[in-house]
Amino acid sequence: MIIGKSVTRVDALDKVTGRSKYTDDLCERNALIAKIYHSTKANGVVTSIDTSEAEKIPGVVKVVTCFDVPKIYFPTAGHPWSTDPSHQDVADRLLLTDRVRFCGDDVAAVIAENEIAAKQAIAALKVEYEEYPFVLDVQEAMADGAPCLHEKYPGNVLGHSSIRRGNLEEAIKEPGLTKIDQWYDTPVVQHCHIENHICFASMENGKITVVSSTQIPHIVRRVVGQALGIPWGSVRIIKPYIGGGFGNKQDALYEPLCAYLSKVVGGRLVKLDVTREETFVSNRTRHAIRSHIISWVRPDGTFAARKLECFSNQGAYASHGHGIAAKGMNAFPQLYPCDNIECDAYTVFTNMPVAGAMRGYGIPQAMFPVESQTDDIALAIGMDPVEFRRKNLMPVGYVDGFSKNENFYDTFNQCLEKGKAYIDFDRKRKEYENQTGPVRKGVGCSVFWYNTAVWPISLESASCRMVLNQDGSVQVQLAETEIGQGADTAFAQMTAATLGIPFEMVHVISCQDTDITPFGTGSYASRQTYVGGFAIKQTALLLKERILKYAYELTRMPSFNLDIIDGKIVRTTDGRELMTLGELSTEALYSLSHSEHLTSESTYQIKSNAYSFGCCFAEVEVDIPMCKVKLVDIINVHDCGQLINPALAEAQVHGGMSMGIGYALSEQLLIDAKTGKTLNDNLLDYKLSTTMDHPHLEAQFVENYEPTSAFGTKSLGEPPACPVAPAIRNAILNATGVSMYQIPMTSQALFKRFKEEELF
Amino acid sequence: MIIGKSVTRVDALDKVTGRSKYTDDLCERNALIAKIYHSTKANGVVTSIDTSEAEKIPGVVKVVTCFDVPKIYFPTAGHPWSTDPSHQDVADRLLLTDRVRFCGDDVAAVIAENEIAAKQAIAALKVEYEEYPFVLDVQEAMADGAPCLHEKYPGNVLGHSSIRRGNLEEAIKEPGLTKIDQWYDTPVVQHCHIENHICFASMENGKITVVSSTQIPHIVRRVVGQALGIPWGSVRIIKPYIGGGFGNKQDALYEPLCAYLSKVVGGRLVKLDVTREETFVSNRTRHAIRSHIISWVRPDGTFAARKLECFSNQGAYASHGHGIAAKGMNAFPQLYPCDNIECDAYTVFTNMPVAGAMRGYGIPQAMFPVESQTDDIALAIGMDPVEFRRKNLMPVGYVDGFSKNENFYDTFNQCLEKGKAYIDFDRKRKEYENQTGPVRKGVGCSVFWYNTAVWPISLESASCRMVLNQDGSVQVQLAETEIGQGADTAFAQMTAATLGIPFEMVHVISCQDTDITPFGTGSYASRQTYVGGFAIKQTALLLKERILKYAYELTRMPSFNLDIIDGKIVRTTDGRELMTLGELSTEALYSLSHSEHLTSESTYQIKSNAYSFGCCFAEVEVDIPMCKVKLVDIINVHDCGQLINPALAEAQVHGGMSMGIGYALSEQLLIDAKTGKTLNDNLLDYKLSTTMDHPHLEAQFVENYEPTSAFGTKSLGEPPACPVAPAIRNAILNATGVSMYQIPMTSQALFKRFKEEELF
Repeated sequence: MIIGKSVTRVDALDKVTGRSKYTDDLCERNALIAKIYHSTKANGVVTSIDTSEAEKIPGVVKVVTCFDVPKIYFPTAGHPWSTDPSHQDVADRLLLTDRVRFCGDDVAAVIAENEIAAKQAIAALKVEYEEYPFVLDVQEAMADGAPCLHEKYPGNVLGHSSIRRGNLEEAIKEPGLTKIDQWYDTPVVQHCHIENHICFASMENGKITVVSSTQIPHIVRRVVGQALGIPWGSVRIIKPYIGGGFGNKQDALYEPLCAYLSKVVGGRLVKLDVTREETFVSNRTRHAIRSHIISWVRPDGTFAARKLECFSNQGAYASHGHGIAAKGMNAFPQLYPCDNIECDAYTVFTNMPVAGAMRGYGIPQAMFPVESQTDDIALAIGMDPVEFRRKNLMPVGYVDGFSKNENFYDTFNQCLEKGKAYIDFDRKRKEYENQTGPVRKGVGCSVFWYNTAVWPISLESASCRMVLNQDGSVQVQLAETEIGQGADTAFAQMTAATLGIPFEMVHVISCQDTDITPFGTGSYASRQTYVGGFAIKQTALLLKERILKYAYELTRMPSFNLDIIDGKIVRTTDGRELMTLGELSTEALYSLSHSEHLTSESTYQIKSNAYSFGCCFAEVEVDIPMCKVKLVDIINVHDCGQLINPALAEAQVHGGMSMGIGYALSEQLLIDAKTGKTLNDNLLDYKLSTTMDHPHLEAQFVENYEPTSAFGTKSLGEPPACPVAPAIRNAILNATGVSMYQIPMTSQALFKRFKEEELF
Repeated sequence: MIIGKSVTRVDALDKVTGRSKYTDDLCERNALIAKIYHSTKANGVVTSIDTSEAEKIPGVVKVVTCFDVPKIYFPTAGHPWSTDPSHQDVADRLLLTDRVRFCGDDVAAVIAENEIAAKQAIAALKVEYEEYPFVLDVQEAMADGAPCLHEKYPGNVLGHSSIRRGNLEEAIKEPGLTKIDQWYDTPVVQHCHIENHICFASMENGKITVVSSTQIPHIVRRVVGQALGIPWGSVRIIKPYIGGGFGNKQDALYEPLCAYLSKVVGGRLVKLDVTREETFVSNRTRHAIRSHIISWVRPDGTFAARKLECFSNQGAYASHGHGIAAKGMNAFPQLYPCDNIECDAYTVFTNMPVAGAMRGYGIPQAMFPVESQTDDIALAIGMDPVEFRRKNLMPVGYVDGFSKNENFYDTFNQCLEKGKAYIDFDRKRKEYENQTGPVRKGVGCSVFWYNTAVWPISLESASCRMVLNQDGSVQVQLAETEIGQGADTAFAQMTAATLGIPFEMVHVISCQDTDITPFGTGSYASRQTYVGGFAIKQTALLLKERILKYAYELTRMPSFNLDIIDGKIVRTTDGRELMTLGELSTEALYSLSHSEHLTSESTYQIKSNAYSFGCCFAEVEVDIPMCKVKLVDIINVHDCGQLINPALAEAQVHGGMSMGIGYALSEQLLIDAKTGKTLNDNLLDYKLSTTMDHPHLEAQFVENYEPTSAFGTKSLGEPPACPVAPAIRNAILNATGVSMYQIPMTSQALFKRFKEEELF
């Protein structure tokens, strides 16, 4: 059985030998080079741009400024479109803007024969601004008199949503309650994919073609069409292999501008290769979310009432908007159901770099406060933190009213058991109870849940096409993109399993081309194997039906007595192999009596969603005088349903854990409060978590077959990043008795808290 | 109505601005360069190759010789495959061969970092041969004791076919018959497409990808698979725009070798760019065919009996084999039906460069003797040559027993009328009757018929896929290739007409990729608009059905009351525009209730064929002392059924006429009888017909809607080249009274004949 087998990735050999083609590999060397002039002011208006010096530089082909571009506002979020305006993303971007809203905003661009000329020309632009006061803090931005970023949003609140359940006012009157009231902060971090965003554009036959490092080719096509005010069918997006995305490339980034620049120079090839510095500042970041949680807990360890307020720092433009804070808030009452709840989430514009989608989509920002407070509560009422969780976690049979997601299994306990056993939780909690030395040990845990795909908030559909070759092998096309996660391999396994052919006989067309690739919205929301799986299964069954119909023509055996097993047409009544699939296919193509190219194509629209679950256990050593945390051991346990490829699943978990470790301990994009400029927009000053910072990363699974799913799968891509930071935080609490309220838990942050708690 | 309109080619702007991508434009600059060592002997065996000096040259990566390659014989002809071995092409080629059969055979190859190193290494190879006697003449090759080229073909006869009708022996006893008995010769010519054959290969994900300048990507895929002994599904062929093919690129040329060379160097990118010299010698040529026709004609100008023998010089390998001579022979009894006929066609191996497909596929070689003799007969019996044709030509209602082709209209007379009127035939024939000066004028004519596509000899099927975009535009994919003839534009017109959308809304995917492009055999046999038309119409109707079904869902108007007119969904009962196709498509894609990507795909297998007809009238001035012919005026009149795009049709005719003029007057590849080496393998010494040699080229049409056709079309691509040479030859006869029996009618040839006929 190919499902559940750790076959080698279909792209492994080519990727390790450097043979795989990424965007830059495909760009002709004679491409014109575009560079962008970014705003040096955090808020204001560009009053003039003197391009005369720039235009004199040899090799400069064209200078385009914010005064030249069409005044068409467009959205950038990688969401499915909707013909219903209330379901559409906020359109607040221009290709280039004179109304600058953050240091890094896009003001002008230069197209030159080479990169040096382009850079010189950018430096030679003389831009004058009228400066406005700016605001970086999310709550300051909500205050009266704060600078307003967008006219349509006085008060800067892009979105506000709330949940009310029961009667909090009454509930908290219950006697004997312990009240835990705390604020938590998560930082701005960046995706730090190895391959920066890069794209190049040119025109042929009146169409604009953009080759781009994106997760979402079909969405980018639509956005380029919107941004340029041209029919979407006259835009073509090609997506080669990409070197990571993690949500940053789930936005239309510079594809619209690049397409426009090509158009400006008559359709010539223009390349826009973004630097690391620009990636940090002018792409997207993870929202910093500040959360305030008040819990009223009974002595038996149950919740009487809870209150949550969270404030999400959107930065200067809407991008994915309020969805991220809303998702985080919605996790709260589902993870630990409680009768009396008040939740409010605000997404607020500030003059910060723009926040967008990033692995976990609000859940890492939610899990840090929620799961930090879970341990704070357990400590306060003297309960074991795992037992406290068991008591309150979403029970088996729980159904969410909105998503209709159901918790079909006792997954949480299964995961917690595995995690506890691996880390030896109970014994170590006891062992670490009364430490006094300078270096102290601790273990901590955290849980999470995560949705799969975006239904019912947005459309979920995927299309697939399969083409049978003369040798019985098939090509598979779908728009759900390989972004390094191994989607192509999983798709090949699913196809092989459904069609009944060897895995090696499946060729997944990895490169999407929106002119040709069946429609699908791309890679995000951990939707690939779930949503793509439906389309693959349906399309493969359709192809199988056509194959067996042709087999009937050739053999006159009824197709209900025929099957495809290991690439052969088999008569199921006696198991006889009647012919190979290759023989059938060759005959079907070349038959003089009935020639037919056997292919299939279909769209599957999903109207379901599925919970993924898991937990993380971490062990740390905290050097108190040095204010230093050493992560000693860590395990993630996931229930993502049936594993298609355990080795790839494990790799996904490792990646997410690494991201979570950085989130917990070292990563933060720092903005200068005086200027609004980013201070550490490079990988020397921004401390990305690397393999040097990791202990052994243990990944274990609980495989509960998801009953709503085509192959029993549910989300795994994003979940591993969700529970790591609070697990480490709770291990530090266990080691030191000090609750941390913000990440990253750097030496400075620990020093501050240890000092407050008088550890020295 | 878009059908019949001379819209601008879809690729016009990009092609004239140099923006269109051809194979070489797409090759990465770091490609390894391959060069081929060709045999310097016309017949023999390579006994040894010393590669040591070649391998020492800096930059040489690998030398591959005939002793290294797998001993797998493969066919190269661009014919549809068949699972029936009797329908398969002759497999007589190796990637590289030690048994060399012509000067130019492929013996070894060098792969180097750059072209200079590759060329130096080729020059440094020390190849030793055992030489055999060779034979160049087709009848000498058939003689006893002639050198045998292929063991399987003793006597060198690759194919022999014959037709017997009535009783010739008896028929010629009829008294009063005039017997005309003559031999005719046509030369070896070459296609001389501007872009030489070029391809490059590399491996990714275990697949070999070859980007090639070919007319037949899907066939080349199969041949590469056969040649390398690998599954056909592991081969991928990509065909960009190509700079002409004319049949030469209807063979698998160097794609198999290039693929093999890439494999040898571990899948690295290897480019094989063929020079003009290699194109002339080591690609394919047009078969030289020698014909012997004896006609017995009654005094009333009808045929009593006819006998035809033709001998086709195949060169060293089978390529398209006997099909070409057979097709030419089959034209004979159909063009001028006669009760008593004996025909024999022989295709014979010689040590000449390999002959293959070329525009007209045997018919130009047949029309020269047949239509030359037609005028010789008319002269002999004192009849007007047009009247003689009218008397004998295939009549209305004629049905061919084999192809079932029917002559539905009085086309021949309609075409002849137009041609006569344009050239002022009758008046000039009279005027030129008694010329005596050194420069004499003459007019001549010729007719022809041509099939459309290859049914019932081979499979005829085409597949098509259409993809509806959000703006109501569509992509169209099919494997029938754009090779400069304008197929993409005609396909777009057909699609627009069937779907009911504006022409500008159709995007034909010009570049074929065998992994993705629906199966079709490519561009040859003038099959494009005919065969492709069926697939386009069927697929467009399928898409329309799906669109109207969705329109019904949206509007609840019955789909039988709906139509698509000018890109809008129209209620036919009152003509109201209910929505645009773009609105429908957008809703269909993004609908939260029913999301569907509207596409369609289907295969159409054709079991019909169609006659195309036409004629050529030419006027010449012959300078007798100078032995020089000046072509003064020329017209082709064609009935190719409904014209899809008159301007493109006219362009096709111009191109064919130019090729015919070169065939008549100047082109011939000369082989040295002593060495077997080609003497004029370049465009300085080989006199290609150019615009400098042309008078105004007049193209006119008779549009008789072909009833078997999807759009009323039938073949036009090849026909224009068929009647030109004999029309010019007959004009020279009219001017000088001298019958020429071979082409090209160069000054040398005219001098010889004028001398024989004692003109001086």
